[in-house]
Amino acid sequence: MSGPIVLLTDFGLSDAYVGTMKGVILGINPAATIVDLSHGVPPQDVGAGAFLLGSSYRYFPPASIFVAVVDPGVGGARRAIALKTPGGTFVAPDNGLLTPIVRDFGISGPARHGRASLAPRGVPPGEVEVYGVELTNSEYLLPRVSATFHGRDIFAPVAAHLSRGIPLAFFGPALHELVVRPEPKVARRDGEIVGEIVFVDRFGNAITNLTPEDLAGLATPVVKVAGHEIAGVSHHYAEREGPLALIGSNGHLEIAVNGGNAAKQLGLKAGDRVVVAGGT
Amino acid sequence: MSGPIVLLTDFGLSDAYVGTMKGVILGINPAATIVDLSHGVPPQDVGAGAFLLGSSYRYFPPASIFVAVVDPGVGGARRAIALKTPGGTFVAPDNGLLTPIVRDFGISGPARHGRASLAPRGVPPGEVEVYGVELTNSEYLLPRVSATFHGRDIFAPVAAHLSRGIPLAFFGPALHELVVRPEPKVARRDGEIVGEIVFVDRFGNAITNLTPEDLAGLATPVVKVAGHEIAGVSHHYAEREGPLALIGSNGHLEIAVNGGNAAKQLGLKAGDRVVVAGGT
Amino acid sequence: MSGPIVLLTDFGLSDAYVGTMKGVILGINPAATIVDLSHGVPPQDVGAGAFLLGSSYRYFPPASIFVAVVDPGVGGARRAIALKTPGGTFVAPDNGLLTPIVRDFGISGPARHGRASLAPRGVPPGEVEVYGVELTNSEYLLPRVSATFHGRDIFAPVAAHLSRGIPLAFFGPALHELVVRPEPKVARRDGEIVGEIVFVDRFGNAITNLTPEDLAGLATPVVKVAGHEIAGVSHHYAEREGPLALIGSNGHLEIAVNGGNAAKQLGLKAGDRVVVAGGT
Repeated sequence: MSGPIVLLTDFGLSDAYVGTMKGVILGINPAATIVDLSHGVPPQDVGAGAFLLGSSYRYFPPASIFVAVVDPGVGGARRAIALKTPGGTFVAPDNGLLTPIVRDFGISGPARHGRASLAPRGVPPGEVEVYGVELTNSEYLLPRVSATFHGRDIFAPVAAHLSRGIPLAFFGPALHELVVRPEPKVARRDGEIVGEIVFVDRFGNAITNLTPEDLAGLATPVVKVAGHEIAGVSHHYAEREGPLALIGSNGHLEIAVNGGNAAKQLGLKAGDRVVVAGGT
Repeated sequence: MSGPIVLLTDFGLSDAYVGTMKGVILGINPAATIVDLSHGVPPQDVGAGAFLLGSSYRYFPPASIFVAVVDPGVGGARRAIALKTPGGTFVAPDNGLLTPIVRDFGISGPARHGRASLAPRGVPPGEVEVYGVELTNSEYLLPRVSATFHGRDIFAPVAAHLSRGIPLAFFGPALHELVVRPEPKVARRDGEIVGEIVFVDRFGNAITNLTPEDLAGLATPVVKVAGHEIAGVSHHYAEREGPLALIGSNGHLEIAVNGGNAAKQLGLKAGDRVVVAGGT
Repeated sequence: MSGPIVLLTDFGLSDAYVGTMKGVILGINPAATIVDLSHGVPPQDVGAGAFLLGSSYRYFPPASIFVAVVDPGVGGARRAIALKTPGGTFVAPDNGLLTPIVRDFGISGPARHGRASLAPRGVPPGEVEVYGVELTNSEYLLPRVSATFHGRDIFAPVAAHLSRGIPLAFFGPALHELVVRPEPKVARRDGEIVGEIVFVDRFGNAITNLTPEDLAGLATPVVKVAGHEIAGVSHHYAEREGPLALIGSNGHLEIAVNGGNAAKQLGLKAGDRVVVAGGT
């Protein structure tokens, strides 16, 4: 038996799109376990979808089948793909949604022209742990594939067939490269660390791309963001009143307000620059 | 084993109403598979609930048990009913929610006084595929039926007992007719096709009641809605910039904005008239 | 096999926090049945969480394992606990979330200094049906416990291990007392009954702490709230136009507007005083 089928989309829950995908899955595999990772990705925000996927997939069993659908190019030329890795099997449009998976499994050198290679240099073919295909075999899709809802017509049925044990190679030709997104870099400048906010959660916590390793050299860190300065890195939310910085649950520096909403109160949003200064 | 129990309500997910229904179901059938179709129907909007049900039920296994609860008349005189069809079993208040089911299975002639007959003329009794009952047998309801939450007290326990294989006839007397809603008609006038918007989804896509068959005779279709004119019918969302019209995933003409929200940007809402002109 | 694992949090569904908890559970017990009670508790509103839990747990099978996480003090000194009762097993931070459970099972005398005793006076130890522990055994937690997401690192894995049959006593030392919240009292004054609004649901229905027993002596009840007066107690929502009062599905007096939103139209919110007058 496979692990759960885990759904991540920007479909929201007010319409019946997500429910319909589940109907398709259960029609193919009535015994499937289906889990919602989130359907609250902002519409067509591939970057936010990639962030949510990348920060949570490792908490699922490695036999899980992830279906990620944030798909502004649906019906156009972008490919539908599936990727088998030691951390799970991922079914998605080829638009960069799987960037954190590509990064975590070291399956490519640096991206060139926004594409990463699936065949890492120097690894003998028999030892490659990652395998991808383009989803072209119509036998495993719904009989009629619409131009606007591949979640229902392609990705859900493929996941259901995978969960029944159909080998990935049956779904289409092997993939040699896939689209990756540029990821925000951490810079060092005049003894300061420069990163950015990559996601704001429902509590208004602003999650950055900075890790404890990035801050390791700073004796008295001061976080500067959107005109505010926060001295020190706290251990947990209730540790002090007002704005604070801490290492959040996904291992990154996070700006929060105890009992409040940092994004609203400090005017923060994804993409904002975050600078950390601090004596040595 | 039955198919999944599929829930559609206007309860939203912020309260515990939906969760409570699931508790009732699992208390009666711990092995039930429960799926959310949607709980985001606008409060008491029976028409929107009927649309979501009608456009998605056929993607579920025919053994599914649908529980639809949009129920402004709860506790009053309206009946609680269940309907077995080749497309699934449907449990709902008798207020028109099941109109698309009645329509799809041809189980009635034209509605008279807002009610449709369950016994199609000319079909021998042994060949009738559709069977309905009024849910009156208290043996299959919760011991105390409130006046305000029949989702918990009537519909959930009935679905759970059905999923254990209790025959529909045990739940109450046979139904001879049920309430149907008037459905918006497609009209033709001076070579133009006139329909209306029936639903706006979370992306702001405005779904109409017009099908490709309705538009078949138009060589150069132009869609007019809310003072806007859109020339041509596109294949997918990313095909052009700005407002566009296409045949959406449920097989109907849909107004969308590539990368935007058509309902907000064009000022569209359910009930708006849509006119399609076009040379022949 | 245990009953379902039932999740109640203030995490919302737009992020991946809830989905991640489910991944952790399925990694430990792939056969677990997971149900969402609600994730729409207003952020950090322990009182609203306690209300939703208290008004719904009894509709679930007694073998259920409830995981309730509304946890403003996460990472601080508050304890993580689990409580076994005849109505279910409850896993939560020790911050008063379980107050309705403590109340319903009579496991304490009146709270002193905000804490209730788990050992009811006069009950022989062998007959105590309620048993609690502090969750300290790291064997049943994730290997790395963050300071900000105990839902993922403590509560989810504990629930999953419980669902596999690990005895509660293995999880940590027995609990002798736990935190309870003050609950709003019903007062009588000059022949009037005084209570308050404890919760407003998605339909705008304002649920009070008053029961039919509280109102038993009033021949012609008049409900006064926020400057409005409502005469009589209705049976169901559709019984009359405009504002009405009725006994809602959780057995409490509720203020509603037929086809409308009482909270918005009458300006009601949790904490508002509700007075019921009425001849005798």
